[in-house]
Amino acid sequence: MVRTGRRPRLSPEDGPDGRSGTRTAILAAARAGFAARGYDGASTRAIAAAAGVDAALIHHYFGGKQRLFVAAMELPFDPDLVRRTVIAGPREGLGERLVRFFLAMWEEPARRQILVGMVRSAMTDPEAAAMVRRIVVEGAILPLVAETGVTDSAFRATLVGGQLMGLALARYILCVEPMAGASVDAVVAAIAPTIQRYVTADLGFDAAG
Amino acid sequence: MVRTGRRPRLSPEDGPDGRSGTRTAILAAARAGFAARGYDGASTRAIAAAAGVDAALIHHYFGGKQRLFVAAMELPFDPDLVRRTVIAGPREGLGERLVRFFLAMWEEPARRQILVGMVRSAMTDPEAAAMVRRIVVEGAILPLVAETGVTDSAFRATLVGGQLMGLALARYILCVEPMAGASVDAVVAAIAPTIQRYVTADLGFDAAG
Repeated sequence: MVRTGRRPRLSPEDGPDGRSGTRTAILAAARAGFAARGYDGASTRAIAAAAGVDAALIHHYFGGKQRLFVAAMELPFDPDLVRRTVIAGPREGLGERLVRFFLAMWEEPARRQILVGMVRSAMTDPEAAAMVRRIVVEGAILPLVAETGVTDSAFRATLVGGQLMGLALARYILCVEPMAGASVDAVVAAIAPTIQRYVTADLGFDAAG
Repeated sequence: MVRTGRRPRLSPEDGPDGRSGTRTAILAAARAGFAARGYDGASTRAIAAAAGVDAALIHHYFGGKQRLFVAAMELPFDPDLVRRTVIAGPREGLGERLVRFFLAMWEEPARRQILVGMVRSAMTDPEAAAMVRRIVVEGAILPLVAETGVTDSAFRATLVGGQLMGLALARYILCVEPMAGASVDAVVAAIAPTIQRYVTADLGFDAAG
């Protein structure tokens, strides 16, 4: 099965030829490995061992660590769904809808594992950092902010992204109490007005400059 | 000089016996290494090589990687100074004073290197994470918030810490534009009201629960 002479398929659907299981096992091991050790700390050898396959298979299916990482860290949410969910409804509830969406994503263990891996990897690997910038800020938050029609939408998007990343750090990665154990409603009550202000309010300075 | 039979001294003042230079060189190399690679990624061997000393000297002076890390990551600010600076003056300017203090610390290259190393290491190493919780939240931010006499000071401290860490991530670690290149005044105008609210305002929920 390792060397069939065919090119490895890199789409999420591997077809019914039995490869799907191996590929899925490697991706699951990669997500766990990157989440636990970050990009630099997780070796392809250890990921292969955890998946119960030969390390050569990772190169066969993914062409190397960087492409494995990108495949494993597939966006754990649909940016269009975020946009539709958050934009729908009255404008003054936008901050609350975004914070609730963000928390719901992190509260789900499987997604949290992917997200923790993304954040950890972005700390030490420039390519992972570029990916986080691209998918989180440019891909998800910026279109959402821009859709409200405000000025300075790029600066506002980084304010929103920074606050949400900091919340995730405190609550889910560093697990600082009492933030880690606080109820979703308490966190929403505290953070939603911040997000609302970053998206829609006058920030008191020509910030884009 | 390596084996004098005397115990290694671990205080910042090594005395005039010539050891100080070696110890200082190791600490500088450790700060650079931890900042660039995080706790897991930086090896004591590579740190020794960068300092131009034998790896055995790291064990001689510091007893191992964990103690080297703690010594290298000495708190890059004086918590009492933070408290005095931020608490002094009118209560309604507290958010702005804290954000300005925080940005001034990060804008200085030598301190930024230490802080980046702390944050990166905290992502993957539980002991480093515990240290960040202890010194940043419990050591610096919580006493400051508590001094204002508000209720829920522990929860408020994690809100402040989360927002400030997220700001540092976006501006100094992931370097997301336009946040990375924005003026200090623009960042203060945007973030100070958030910090002010987290410390002094009614957060609309019995948050400590």
